Amino acid sequence: MIGPEIERLIQLLSKLPGLGPRSARRAALHLMKRRDSLLVPLSESMALAAEAIRNCSVCGNLDSRDPCSVCSDHSRDRSTICVVEDAGDLWALERTRAFHGTYHVLGGTLSALQGVGPDDLNIPSLVERAKDPAVTEVILALNATVDGQTTAHVVTDRLSGSGVSVSRLAHGVPVGGELDYLDDGTLTAALKARRPL
Amino acid sequence: MIGPEIERLIQLLSKLPGLGPRSARRAALHLMKRRDSLLVPLSESMALAAEAIRNCSVCGNLDSRDPCSVCSDHSRDRSTICVVEDAGDLWALERTRAFHGTYHVLGGTLSALQGVGPDDLNIPSLVERAKDPAVTEVILALNATVDGQTTAHVVTDRLSGSGVSVSRLAHGVPVGGELDYLDDGTLTAALKARRPL
Repeated sequence: MIGPEIERLIQLLSKLPGLGPRSARRAALHLMKRRDSLLVPLSESMALAAEAIRNCSVCGNLDSRDPCSVCSDHSRDRSTICVVEDAGDLWALERTRAFHGTYHVLGGTLSALQGVGPDDLNIPSLVERAKDPAVTEVILALNATVDGQTTAHVVTDRLSGSGVSVSRLAHGVPVGGELDYLDDGTLTAALKARRPL
Repeated sequence: MIGPEIERLIQLLSKLPGLGPRSARRAALHLMKRRDSLLVPLSESMALAAEAIRNCSVCGNLDSRDPCSVCSDHSRDRSTICVVEDAGDLWALERTRAFHGTYHVLGGTLSALQGVGPDDLNIPSLVERAKDPAVTEVILALNATVDGQTTAHVVTDRLSGSGVSVSRLAHGVPVGGELDYLDDGTLTAALKARRPL
């Protein structure tokens, strides 16, 4: 005999990745016990995000500014565009502090199964951006999955003739990884791409 | 370079049980991609819960009604009060459909480490309710942990002299459980409490 308000809250929470029905109940209870310190702030933060956060009209990144804070930062190197699947990948790359160019967020990967074709992704706007003579390199930072690699091929194809050089992230042994636990594909790729010391 | 709104949303989401920093980022991204189908409804559902849900003044249950839907349901057996730690335990018992009495939610267990004493729990209101001559039995459905059992002892102590009989849930082999995987304490308790066939 759970009230309809709590029932609905649990049902919505269970749609979050990583939360099932049981952990959604625990989360709802946790929120209810921390009404002022968590439930109210989280509700307000979500309402604010829903209202303020939009996709950047240049690169597709999620931000409350448009163009986003990366695109409007004049210290970024505009000659290089790093193509990622979604904003989470952009965040991951930003955390490394190893990349100082701009991004382009495709908004997904091609998927025959899920019916995602080239026109469902932000590929045309990338081709448009690549026409700018200031842009010299496009780095494809897509997942090393079948869908990610298919997308990389299609993007490369669309960019041919635009004069930019297209590269992709290196495949190899993860830093800190043990060879014994690596899959054959990664090991083969690492061997082929060996570097002189 | 994540915007402050998203940063705050991730930080608040990571306070939910079951979500760490990484899964909170995934959840935030998931929400942002599903603005209308999930982010907005969840924000509204939380705001509604924060406003409407209160602790029942009789039993301490969480509900938008006061007295709660259990306490105000006249078909429930008012002679039996089942004492639970929090509303989540009440929900678990309600799901079994095996109990038709009323509840009393303590709001936690005694904990010397966390400085929770008898006066921090809803024990006085339970003692008050037990004085009603219509109440004949109090069932302690507390966790079989040290804190839960300490609480059970204190509650039993406070209820002595009120004339109600106090019982606790049976300890034993979980239904579907394998003996080989059971801890010694449970196995000992199950052996001692063996039932004639």
